[in-house]
Amino acid sequence: MRKFYLITLLLLGLGASSLLAQDKEADRQDALFIKEIYNTALIDGQGYEWLRDLTSIGGRLSGSPQSLAAVEYTRQMLDTLGLDRVYLQECTVPHWVRGDKEIVRITHSQMGSFDLNAVALGNSIGTGVNGVQAAVIEVHSIEELEKLGPAKLKGKIVFFNRPMDNTKISTFGAYGSAVDQRVYGASEASKYGAVAVLVRSMTTRLDDVPHTGVSYYRDDAKKKIPAISVSTNHAELLSNLLQNGEVRVYIRNTSMMLAPKRSYNVIGEIKGSEKPDEIIVVGGHLDSWDMGTGAHDDGSGCVQSMDVLYMMRKMGYKPKRTIRCVLFMNEENGQEGSKEYANTSNDNKEYHIAAIESDRGGFTPRGFTTEADEDVYVKHFKYVSQWNKLLGPYGLEIKTGGSGADVKRLRSQKGILFGLLPDSQRYFDYHHTDIDTFDAVNKRELQLGAAAMASLVYLLDKYGLDTYKSEK
Amino acid sequence: MRKFYLITLLLLGLGASSLLAQDKEADRQDALFIKEIYNTALIDGQGYEWLRDLTSIGGRLSGSPQSLAAVEYTRQMLDTLGLDRVYLQECTVPHWVRGDKEIVRITHSQMGSFDLNAVALGNSIGTGVNGVQAAVIEVHSIEELEKLGPAKLKGKIVFFNRPMDNTKISTFGAYGSAVDQRVYGASEASKYGAVAVLVRSMTTRLDDVPHTGVSYYRDDAKKKIPAISVSTNHAELLSNLLQNGEVRVYIRNTSMMLAPKRSYNVIGEIKGSEKPDEIIVVGGHLDSWDMGTGAHDDGSGCVQSMDVLYMMRKMGYKPKRTIRCVLFMNEENGQEGSKEYANTSNDNKEYHIAAIESDRGGFTPRGFTTEADEDVYVKHFKYVSQWNKLLGPYGLEIKTGGSGADVKRLRSQKGILFGLLPDSQRYFDYHHTDIDTFDAVNKRELQLGAAAMASLVYLLDKYGLDTYKSEK
Repeated sequence: MRKFYLITLLLLGLGASSLLAQDKEADRQDALFIKEIYNTALIDGQGYEWLRDLTSIGGRLSGSPQSLAAVEYTRQMLDTLGLDRVYLQECTVPHWVRGDKEIVRITHSQMGSFDLNAVALGNSIGTGVNGVQAAVIEVHSIEELEKLGPAKLKGKIVFFNRPMDNTKISTFGAYGSAVDQRVYGASEASKYGAVAVLVRSMTTRLDDVPHTGVSYYRDDAKKKIPAISVSTNHAELLSNLLQNGEVRVYIRNTSMMLAPKRSYNVIGEIKGSEKPDEIIVVGGHLDSWDMGTGAHDDGSGCVQSMDVLYMMRKMGYKPKRTIRCVLFMNEENGQEGSKEYANTSNDNKEYHIAAIESDRGGFTPRGFTTEADEDVYVKHFKYVSQWNKLLGPYGLEIKTGGSGADVKRLRSQKGILFGLLPDSQRYFDYHHTDIDTFDAVNKRELQLGAAAMASLVYLLDKYGLDTYKSEK
Repeated sequence: MRKFYLITLLLLGLGASSLLAQDKEADRQDALFIKEIYNTALIDGQGYEWLRDLTSIGGRLSGSPQSLAAVEYTRQMLDTLGLDRVYLQECTVPHWVRGDKEIVRITHSQMGSFDLNAVALGNSIGTGVNGVQAAVIEVHSIEELEKLGPAKLKGKIVFFNRPMDNTKISTFGAYGSAVDQRVYGASEASKYGAVAVLVRSMTTRLDDVPHTGVSYYRDDAKKKIPAISVSTNHAELLSNLLQNGEVRVYIRNTSMMLAPKRSYNVIGEIKGSEKPDEIIVVGGHLDSWDMGTGAHDDGSGCVQSMDVLYMMRKMGYKPKRTIRCVLFMNEENGQEGSKEYANTSNDNKEYHIAAIESDRGGFTPRGFTTEADEDVYVKHFKYVSQWNKLLGPYGLEIKTGGSGADVKRLRSQKGILFGLLPDSQRYFDYHHTDIDTFDAVNKRELQLGAAAMASLVYLLDKYGLDTYKSEK
């Protein structure tokens, strides 16, 4: 018995060390290839110059002429790469327009009349050309509305002023726990008879820059009321004034929702040589807000995704699986592009083994967050986490924590979904503002993101999702 | 025999699990305290506002009135913190002045006469008021000079044009392998009869911003010749022109080295309650180049170091060991401050168990690099690496890779020396330029660096350097 065990152990040992030697050789080859990807991204990558052009088009809000110019520009750029297929995928998008420059005016006994730095939130209705004037009441949460009730809120302008929690290390965590005020503040306040809402801008800074972003009117909202974002400095000022007595504010905005428009996802792909039915997506969203030029949000994600295909061509890499770059339309105020993409993909019985979204800004990448259907997540996560040893030297780690608004719709296909995770500290300085422009993006930081995505695509393509050990 | 083994194993197991429980409780307390440090840094930290004031003084080159104003400002700020001791440590520093705006002028048959974006390197002599004019010869390394020899170099302006290697992920690595041209280019070229040197700016970007930085005349240099830095865009242009034939350049700079001046390190300390003779230093350098306002280099490191003491006071933390903030004078062109500090410390038979330098910019921290005397390094490194589990959640890792120019002189005291390691991608956009100003620093990134330093100081203070397990 004992002898048998010994021999078995010995054989297992030999087998393991031989496997280990193979692993080491594969790791060495993979490390060399990933280094080559980084060299290519940092020296020859096109993302930064594409971003210069893309942002020169201006803000690219769904339905705008600029958004269609961006469709045409990126389609043409993908067309230069010698891909197997470049095409547009039609979708119908909301068409919201901001109208005149917004006015949020305080007339104050001591301070005189002055205007707050303010912009309408996306999807907001207008006040009408005459505007509205009312007393302001400050709250810090949607829950607080119920406590105050119609008696306190009817006819008022509700001012949501809960700051982002700056003690959170991830600014996305801080955003996630404050953004309900912006998204649903108007809808909820209207139930109690409020006439408009002001919302503190979603940013980690105290500054004079107002941040727009989506608001939605829930179906059970009594009536739609205007929703306006105020810079954090002016939110502080308004809050201070309110501590000394009533403050009345005049608001005028002429934003409105027009009829839906036709628009497009832009798609380019390299067909897989061995397993063309296994699809790996890289993507970002092509639309942006109308303020600034959507450089970080999400011009960066678009050009990084395009760069992944460019680099594969440049390096002469022939993928086994199909690699597809998808530039989604309408992430910001409806996500009609990603709905269309997922529906069509499901109808065609496609299988995305993986999708990588970049929509957290063009900053130094620190890894990827992941999600998948719960049936498969633990297995997938454990599997892809093996690659941390190859990605670690580039400061990357595969972690839990979600993917992205556009690719998450592919969960039902049971692949694994990734979100590129860049350093988050500066993102909300720029997010949805006039200052999210090309000069806010650093070339090396952007290109390192493209390299990180391309490296992960390489590993996913080489090893697939379930066969890592067996293919080695 | 077998029974004995079993019992021994059982006892060892129990002992280990009990130790483990203690470790876990200590880890939990440490994690809570470190979280509290981060909260304090992000909400109450003073570094960012101090940096605003410090940079408003202007460039702080050693010997300048601004450098003395910075000494006085930081001394006064430290004085407000209720420390046990705040004092100035005298040192003698070189006093170099830039003089008139530099002229580097090309007169070209096709392009006409135009000026390159150029600045004198630190310590450079001037051309005299009439300037020098000569033909330019391009080289890519100091080694190349020997091959060319006096026949090719005599009477010429030598143009060092080896770019930083942008494929390196760490820009400090890229800097390290290019900077010899800047530091010793003039000294080496003069041996072959060159009349001046132009040096491509040390940056990862192609842009119009010239970067200064130190140059040294070696004792064996035949004679001193002027050394001028040219922006990377203009270095490329000059190189292109040289491919089409001779290019003559006129250089005029009036920089000069004046008589040495008295200056100071600024020091503040909290005396240790149990082991006052074990010193932990946090520091940066107070001087900067005369261009820009030394915001990243190294105003950031100074205010982060001051913030460590501020936060300890704010949190009511009473250190067991002596915590000392040292703002070193003259890192940029002589390091006379750190020499003075180390010499005095050695004379007083002090023992620095650790010193943490921040001199790589106020960007998101990613860890610490370390060094120590070779007798103790392996032991020390292994010991402090245990803390990676506590620092990891903040994106930090303790690694090998050196400390910093000022604290490394303390190696002979056999403690461990750290350099704060921030994300390096943007550092050489700003380094030694007119654009290294307050607006280039992000508040959260800066304050996270102060929190990282304070967290490491807390662990070093609590556990000392050699007694981690035994004190738990």
